[in-house]
Amino acid sequence: MKKELILLDHGSGGKMAHRLISEMLVPCFDNPLLSRLDDGAVFHLEEGRLAFSTDTYVVDPPFFPGGSIGDLAINGTVNDLAMCGAEPLYLSVGLILEEGFPLSDLERICRHMREAARRARVTVVTGDTKVVPQGSADKIFINTSGIGKIPGNVAVSGQNAKAGDRILLSGGIAEHGMAVLAQREGLAFDTTIVSDTAPLNRLVGLMFETKKEIHVLRDPTRGGVGSTLNEIALASRVGIEIHETRIPVKPQVKALCDLLGFDPLYVANEGKLLAFLPEKACDSVLEAMQKDPLGKDACIIGEVTRAHPGKVVMKTSIGGSRFVDMLTGEQLPRIC
Amino acid sequence: MKKELILLDHGSGGKMAHRLISEMLVPCFDNPLLSRLDDGAVFHLEEGRLAFSTDTYVVDPPFFPGGSIGDLAINGTVNDLAMCGAEPLYLSVGLILEEGFPLSDLERICRHMREAARRARVTVVTGDTKVVPQGSADKIFINTSGIGKIPGNVAVSGQNAKAGDRILLSGGIAEHGMAVLAQREGLAFDTTIVSDTAPLNRLVGLMFETKKEIHVLRDPTRGGVGSTLNEIALASRVGIEIHETRIPVKPQVKALCDLLGFDPLYVANEGKLLAFLPEKACDSVLEAMQKDPLGKDACIIGEVTRAHPGKVVMKTSIGGSRFVDMLTGEQLPRIC
Repeated sequence: MKKELILLDHGSGGKMAHRLISEMLVPCFDNPLLSRLDDGAVFHLEEGRLAFSTDTYVVDPPFFPGGSIGDLAINGTVNDLAMCGAEPLYLSVGLILEEGFPLSDLERICRHMREAARRARVTVVTGDTKVVPQGSADKIFINTSGIGKIPGNVAVSGQNAKAGDRILLSGGIAEHGMAVLAQREGLAFDTTIVSDTAPLNRLVGLMFETKKEIHVLRDPTRGGVGSTLNEIALASRVGIEIHETRIPVKPQVKALCDLLGFDPLYVANEGKLLAFLPEKACDSVLEAMQKDPLGKDACIIGEVTRAHPGKVVMKTSIGGSRFVDMLTGEQLPRIC
Repeated sequence: MKKELILLDHGSGGKMAHRLISEMLVPCFDNPLLSRLDDGAVFHLEEGRLAFSTDTYVVDPPFFPGGSIGDLAINGTVNDLAMCGAEPLYLSVGLILEEGFPLSDLERICRHMREAARRARVTVVTGDTKVVPQGSADKIFINTSGIGKIPGNVAVSGQNAKAGDRILLSGGIAEHGMAVLAQREGLAFDTTIVSDTAPLNRLVGLMFETKKEIHVLRDPTRGGVGSTLNEIALASRVGIEIHETRIPVKPQVKALCDLLGFDPLYVANEGKLLAFLPEKACDSVLEAMQKDPLGKDACIIGEVTRAHPGKVVMKTSIGGSRFVDMLTGEQLPRIC
């Protein structure tokens, strides 16, 4: 099917749609649940708590340094489930394709999805493909939804932050956003920044193996660390204090942010997490994180306070302090 | 928020996004699982078989006689789950909004989703909202994914049709497709055709209460009854024979199809189902269907044969017979 383009007919529910699905999509994600081609996937689950999450990916361009919309769509929903404390199990994939989108690009994106799913140990079990006329969508949008199983004793929520909790960050920030931006703008200077898109479920598993008392887990995607911390402060009705000098930002990421006038605190990440946990659990969890490649730069960036509930305060590098608000105004549309 | 338009900022992950979600979307679907605003919903399930399904809705225009993209998005995924033999429980909603889309239209669509969810007795427990710049999408696209529970002894699949099975159709065909088309084209003559969009889970429940031996359930959406029967013939490696005179089509739907050159067999339905079951179970299931408003016109339209496996043959009204192929060529893009 190479060199061919997506036609409206590929979304018709008829012969071409059947061929696209049975000759390309199903073989790509090859597994017995998907290949039944029923209206949904059917599987058996033990009694317990499930997490259920959905996310739509509209990133522009679909290919960028470090990944593609395919990786992002798998890793993003895997991470949303992991942030519920769940072990991700099954994913759905819903494609919106623009008429004229190259089939070879779709194949490449599907291969990326397959590889990302393999890495995260999840299975794509059901899907849907829509095609819209040229100009009615921009290239490709992907929705993934997912189901995961929450082990006993795990209870994380954005509402669970407690005064005294320490706040861990798993690594350097703003890499995904700046990588996509650099690619999009075709920046003349060579950047070495690549997206941090990655599945965090293994790292989360290691953290829970060490200590169950993690109160909050959240991946700071759209809106960045700044907006995510504000959401948690609001949901838990606590204050948050972070220390500017402790927040890791790679020098080249910092330089590009400075050059273009972006605050890295508000730039999207796709392979980082924030964890809130009691001080006594902090050291052992941090140590466990640092042993994993995705957590090797993990550090403590702040703590939860009784003061200024609902607000985030940052101690700046020059010794002052300022409120960090939620992002206002969209700097980077279609970043994920 | 009325008279306002969707801005890129509503999808930023920042303050405007937070307001849209917490002041409009969450109150609309008001329930404790959703309102936690975590990265996913968490709930307890008994041990058993689950069905998991996804579908993206891109219908144009978003409002049409008999419904909107909101009804469609809920009913469509409810029906996909019901067609797996499942009782639908939880849905996710993923929105893609075009910058400039009226907030009042979004509110109306969300109300339709809420009403449809109420009618189908499902709960919207998690969601996601993306905004893309004007021209990068057309108005609104909605993905819904869903989870349902399959009762013991129920085992339906497109692969399970058996020679000798009778084929039931729950009512008149081609209503959704022709209603949307009439609206889209602004047809000068007044049509009374309304979409059949409806949740089929109650009807399916009544059918299973009567007899568990239903082999196949499928809702003939995109591609219509013709394409759906072909998929089943292929998946089950059986022949299918249907009788043209037994397939119900309302006169005004038939007239519009004739006028515009559409074959109703290939036009989308959004509230109809096909069921394959052994002859001995047929009468009691048909009777049960006819007692429900959504099945009052249910009838037997054909049977499964050992002859011509993988093919669908129609006995025509003039006494001949012809092969009914899958739809080739897209007649009606963005119908659902």
